[in-house]
Amino acid sequence: MASKKRIAVLSPVAWRTPPRQYGAWETVASNITEGLVSRGWDVTLFATGDSVTRARLHSVVDQGYEEDRSIDPKVAEYLHIAEAFEHAAEFDLIHSHYDFMALGYTRLVKTPVLTTIHGFSSPRIMPVYEKYRGGYFVSISDADRSPALDYLTTVYNGIDLALYPQRTRRGEDLIFIGRIHPDKGVHLAIQVAKQSGRRLLIAGILQDTCYFRDQVQPHVDNQQICYVGAVDVKQKNDLFASALALLHLNTIPERFGLVLAEANAAGVPVIATDLGSCREVIEHGVTGFLVPDVAGAVKALEEVAVIEDQACRKRVEERFSIPQMVAAYEQVYAKIFLLEQGK
Amino acid sequence: MASKKRIAVLSPVAWRTPPRQYGAWETVASNITEGLVSRGWDVTLFATGDSVTRARLHSVVDQGYEEDRSIDPKVAEYLHIAEAFEHAAEFDLIHSHYDFMALGYTRLVKTPVLTTIHGFSSPRIMPVYEKYRGGYFVSISDADRSPALDYLTTVYNGIDLALYPQRTRRGEDLIFIGRIHPDKGVHLAIQVAKQSGRRLLIAGILQDTCYFRDQVQPHVDNQQICYVGAVDVKQKNDLFASALALLHLNTIPERFGLVLAEANAAGVPVIATDLGSCREVIEHGVTGFLVPDVAGAVKALEEVAVIEDQACRKRVEERFSIPQMVAAYEQVYAKIFLLEQGK
Repeated sequence: MASKKRIAVLSPVAWRTPPRQYGAWETVASNITEGLVSRGWDVTLFATGDSVTRARLHSVVDQGYEEDRSIDPKVAEYLHIAEAFEHAAEFDLIHSHYDFMALGYTRLVKTPVLTTIHGFSSPRIMPVYEKYRGGYFVSISDADRSPALDYLTTVYNGIDLALYPQRTRRGEDLIFIGRIHPDKGVHLAIQVAKQSGRRLLIAGILQDTCYFRDQVQPHVDNQQICYVGAVDVKQKNDLFASALALLHLNTIPERFGLVLAEANAAGVPVIATDLGSCREVIEHGVTGFLVPDVAGAVKALEEVAVIEDQACRKRVEERFSIPQMVAAYEQVYAKIFLLEQGK
Repeated sequence: MASKKRIAVLSPVAWRTPPRQYGAWETVASNITEGLVSRGWDVTLFATGDSVTRARLHSVVDQGYEEDRSIDPKVAEYLHIAEAFEHAAEFDLIHSHYDFMALGYTRLVKTPVLTTIHGFSSPRIMPVYEKYRGGYFVSISDADRSPALDYLTTVYNGIDLALYPQRTRRGEDLIFIGRIHPDKGVHLAIQVAKQSGRRLLIAGILQDTCYFRDQVQPHVDNQQICYVGAVDVKQKNDLFASALALLHLNTIPERFGLVLAEANAAGVPVIATDLGSCREVIEHGVTGFLVPDVAGAVKALEEVAVIEDQACRKRVEERFSIPQMVAAYEQVYAKIFLLEQGK
């Protein structure tokens, strides 16, 4: 039955799948792929050639275009997406993580295509979704939905809990992990650190270099405010071990917030802006605090001792694990197969 | 026979087809479309919604993304190209002017696709052409060919001779018409003007603003060196009327050089760098001069009086007209239909 079905997972080619450091979409595509393999599905992963998977790997782009600047991103994307659709007949379902770009190919093949929408990067991409609104869509949080689209359901991202074991000790530092971009509120985390007199460790790729130069770097003294660059899984766990709390003072609605689940998995309380999906990922007063602003975050820090590491981990185990995510996608796949039969 | 065949012409959506001012690819796509209509073909033009054609217009993008900055170019291209291929079954042939981007769709439809390669914008796009090298390709000059590809033939671009009537008087100015970009040698044209003591009128879109600021603008005195901005057909003809010669001191191999044919059509001699296609478009000593450098151009200006307006026009009439281009494409189409029958 299920295990006989052939699934193609179309991952982005910005980074390796799974990414070495940053790359949320590739992380989720990897987790789905490996989870499906564990459950006995016949899975082909379309991703960069250096990707690591137990599924069949199919690639026409050797490396992520963010990791090899000699690659033209547009060229890599056209080659990669077209390749997957040229092999559509070999699959019972294509599970696309390729945003609006893959939609233009969906009507040219008979294989049904499920798109997990990892976020709308701009209102300017909406015309594509509107044209293909008859497609199969899954949202990654209830908050991150467009009223213009019909969704099959929300499937929360699942993380690999084995990568983020519950820490054995609790730290005293504040940590920020994420893209260095105003959307992620690094400047607000700095204010919280200064007002609360605590050390802040900032980790993540420099996405907005002007923002970094103007609003982050002037505060970096390598004493109270430290910037440690992009981090891999091991370095993230080191940060979690030294954390009193993770600060995630996003200034726009979060779409899911993978790092919130990762921090909670390690037992780290999260203080996040109550915008977008944060209230779906964080349970206020149990796995962290949802706050309106910097003052709210400073106040929350005074109460953060009440949050138990074990409670944080438990909620991730119950809601944001790979098996849970894959089980939810299996239900979505079953629904699509049924709908397709009826056609 | 031929007239029963249904042709889709896929034009770019950077500009309107035909463009109001700049837009070489859209100009050629328009000329092919209108030429095919005149010859009785059943033609559908895929172009921006504001395009002007006697063919059936099919559009999903209202305006060129270069003319309406609220449009995301990537979104417009994905929507536009996918739309054409979704309608592939309605056509006997798709004639694509959409560079490498359309190639990824060609294996997903049964309709044969001919690609006119208007130039390789970067070596980084070559992997796409290499993957789809089994496709049907036409080059726009013998010079602009990649050794990695097989071409059916070269078809020179044809211009609408009615738009560029032979001028009735000859001028004394030097003119430059083209994108303001180092590739086009605007800085070299300025040197020629200064060394020959003649006025230079510069027209064209500002593609490289730093180049303009550093190497063009400092010389613009609105006396000897004038910049008049982007120009439409009427303004081009005004420039032609005041021209002693058109300077086209390209620094990289020209792919075709539409403006060379337009200038010649109006009777204007062209002094061009002997790089790429220029020697195919210009007949040295008859319709202008092919030169190696600035000194060569200054020297050529001393002899330019020997070039006859009538000889310039005659060569364009004989080689670079719409009927000639369309007749050549009709032969290409016939060859493709024959090859497809044999499959």
